[in-house]
Amino acid sequence: MPPTFPQQPLTAEIIAIGSELLAPDRSDTNSLWLTEKLNGIGIEVKLKTIVGDDDARLEEAIRDAVRRSRVVITTGGLGPTEDDITRKVAARALGRRLLLDEKVLDWIKARFESFGRKMPERNSRQAMVIDGSEVLDNPNGTAPGLFIEHENTAIALLPGPPREMRPMFESFVQPRLAEKSGSLRVVRRVLRVAGMGESALDELIAPVYLQYENPQTSILFNQTEVEIQLTANSRTDAEAEALLDRVSEQLEERLGKAIFSFAGETMEEVVGLKLAVGRYSLAVAESCTGGLIAQRLTALPGASKYFIEGVVSYSNESKTRTLGVEPILLLEHGAVSAPVAEAMAEGVRTRAGTDFGLSITGIAGPDGGSEEKPVGLVYIALADDAHTEHRKLNLPGDRNLIRWRASQAALDLLRHRLI
Amino acid sequence: MPPTFPQQPLTAEIIAIGSELLAPDRSDTNSLWLTEKLNGIGIEVKLKTIVGDDDARLEEAIRDAVRRSRVVITTGGLGPTEDDITRKVAARALGRRLLLDEKVLDWIKARFESFGRKMPERNSRQAMVIDGSEVLDNPNGTAPGLFIEHENTAIALLPGPPREMRPMFESFVQPRLAEKSGSLRVVRRVLRVAGMGESALDELIAPVYLQYENPQTSILFNQTEVEIQLTANSRTDAEAEALLDRVSEQLEERLGKAIFSFAGETMEEVVGLKLAVGRYSLAVAESCTGGLIAQRLTALPGASKYFIEGVVSYSNESKTRTLGVEPILLLEHGAVSAPVAEAMAEGVRTRAGTDFGLSITGIAGPDGGSEEKPVGLVYIALADDAHTEHRKLNLPGDRNLIRWRASQAALDLLRHRLI
Repeated sequence: MPPTFPQQPLTAEIIAIGSELLAPDRSDTNSLWLTEKLNGIGIEVKLKTIVGDDDARLEEAIRDAVRRSRVVITTGGLGPTEDDITRKVAARALGRRLLLDEKVLDWIKARFESFGRKMPERNSRQAMVIDGSEVLDNPNGTAPGLFIEHENTAIALLPGPPREMRPMFESFVQPRLAEKSGSLRVVRRVLRVAGMGESALDELIAPVYLQYENPQTSILFNQTEVEIQLTANSRTDAEAEALLDRVSEQLEERLGKAIFSFAGETMEEVVGLKLAVGRYSLAVAESCTGGLIAQRLTALPGASKYFIEGVVSYSNESKTRTLGVEPILLLEHGAVSAPVAEAMAEGVRTRAGTDFGLSITGIAGPDGGSEEKPVGLVYIALADDAHTEHRKLNLPGDRNLIRWRASQAALDLLRHRLI
Repeated sequence: MPPTFPQQPLTAEIIAIGSELLAPDRSDTNSLWLTEKLNGIGIEVKLKTIVGDDDARLEEAIRDAVRRSRVVITTGGLGPTEDDITRKVAARALGRRLLLDEKVLDWIKARFESFGRKMPERNSRQAMVIDGSEVLDNPNGTAPGLFIEHENTAIALLPGPPREMRPMFESFVQPRLAEKSGSLRVVRRVLRVAGMGESALDELIAPVYLQYENPQTSILFNQTEVEIQLTANSRTDAEAEALLDRVSEQLEERLGKAIFSFAGETMEEVVGLKLAVGRYSLAVAESCTGGLIAQRLTALPGASKYFIEGVVSYSNESKTRTLGVEPILLLEHGAVSAPVAEAMAEGVRTRAGTDFGLSITGIAGPDGGSEEKPVGLVYIALADDAHTEHRKLNLPGDRNLIRWRASQAALDLLRHRLI
């Protein structure tokens, strides 16, 4: 049993309500915004539920959340129509009555009148409030929010449209929750690692991070890169940063230069910055990655400072014609080989007159592999005025992943040279 | 045992697992894809839960979902590390044992060996399976999935990375669920449109689609392309397809060749196929798109049939040296101009000796614009042996969107030539 931390952060759950949020092309974005705001006042989001206009499931979701968490926020379902069920179902889940609030009704009527319209009958539904709740004004719509303190849990029922939900949260809910949470701060840090798989990384660093409950550590394979996410909480940002520093320094001892980013930067941002700062210029020759390195680097504003030219030489003829790769090399070693990779890097560097030439040649699949040269075999090479080096890689994954990993490894080779 | 409703759709719940999915900058996209697939076989998603690496909450989420719904799908938490808890917690929620499956263990070991590596000890965790479950192969990763029939509910535990989850769902889970769900068929069709904004498109086709309730039509700006999504339901696929045909024929009458795809193919797939079928060859010269066209085309298997060479000429010198653009053109008209775009297309075609040469030059921003040549000004050009043509574009959006739209417009120019 670990020792208890008096400053355990408050936990929150978010429930997004509305059948439209269960369509294949819609996602709940309110919860992202709310999570950022909650984290900022030291409240951790532990679970999110997205539920349609479904009485029984919504009731259960609210009841479970209230039992498990100290903060529960719902968004949506406060409108005037039949399928807006949040008020009714939340009252049932909490075992409280729903009452007509005359003041709210007058306010809704006045709002319609201010637009020169009469309140439609069904909008009176929006004046029903849960017994014992506080009504939260909505300057941007007709649906007021509700705030309820129920058995040690704070519950906020907020409208779904972001321009109504956000100001209501910031004006009314955030200050009340900040007070409850007692100023605990949650700070995250993301370290990115190159040249290492998820399992290998975990084996190396588990002995470090398993010693600490604060920060919490998770390792993830984020599409294409391995990330270490550290989340610390403390009374102040400075204290939380100090907790992060302590672990992150130990991780750095173990991982060294395999960590390429300490603040979530991408590999191309890191390499681009180093090139720009050192006033180096770069040219790139790509075969199996088909322009991916060029594309990644030039996606960054200001890439023209260092990126001079890229060649995608998909055919042997193109390697010879544009990169000056000797036909004899292609004949003797094949296009996917160390000598050809090196010749490509030197060739593109000479052509463009740059400080560095970077190259990739490989077999991305699904076809084109053989026993001797299987899918995933990739050579990368880097040339400068004094020196050319290469790496041989055997990359797992499908075509897209092999291409990405090859481009990542090539950029990483350049990064190591620039350190 | 409830009475069975022959035409009542099956209900599903989706549980996305992983603390990283509760961060303010990450959302669960697997459930969107899964929802589309489930809807396609007549299964409705009634609730989604996103839960971190939190034993108690996850156990409750699984137990509740299994009680309420006939189909439960979890994604994530099947990795090899300590915080991958899905197998363990699901076993507990279902009251089943967790057993080591030697066959799975051998398969994982073999997979590591095929990359010339030894399986790290912790990956043996991934060979633990729930008693009575069926193991689902994962050709794209080490985490096998599990499929369990438990008290009238089908439960699938799938890995989190989309490239592992998707094929596993399609190969193993979808056919089993389709069988359970029986009769009502939901069929979707996606038409993709180039060279037209969302509003302009809607104005043109609303008179058609507003006449029909089945199929339902929605128009979306899907990141970078405008799509028309038609969803029909009927007793049989053939009936649903007939309903789709009726509307889609009328849309085609209005939109003509602006529709580039009738089955959700991407622009590069459409163009690549036309090049391959016609046995044409292509070379590409890119400035502001920095390799994006080359990258998009070569992302497709078999691109080497038609894609010969690409040049990313970011500097003026590179345009002259590698593409043979006369310096006088650059001086008189500037790098972003129709004459330079045409010279680039002709130059790359001559260099590579291809049937077509395609080029882009423009200002992607955020810097580099002027009053005369603002950010978003792009010229694209296409050359064949008889003829060179160009288009001038003023593209809205940020750097990424301008680059994408430019690459899309250039590919579309080539598509029209190939029709």
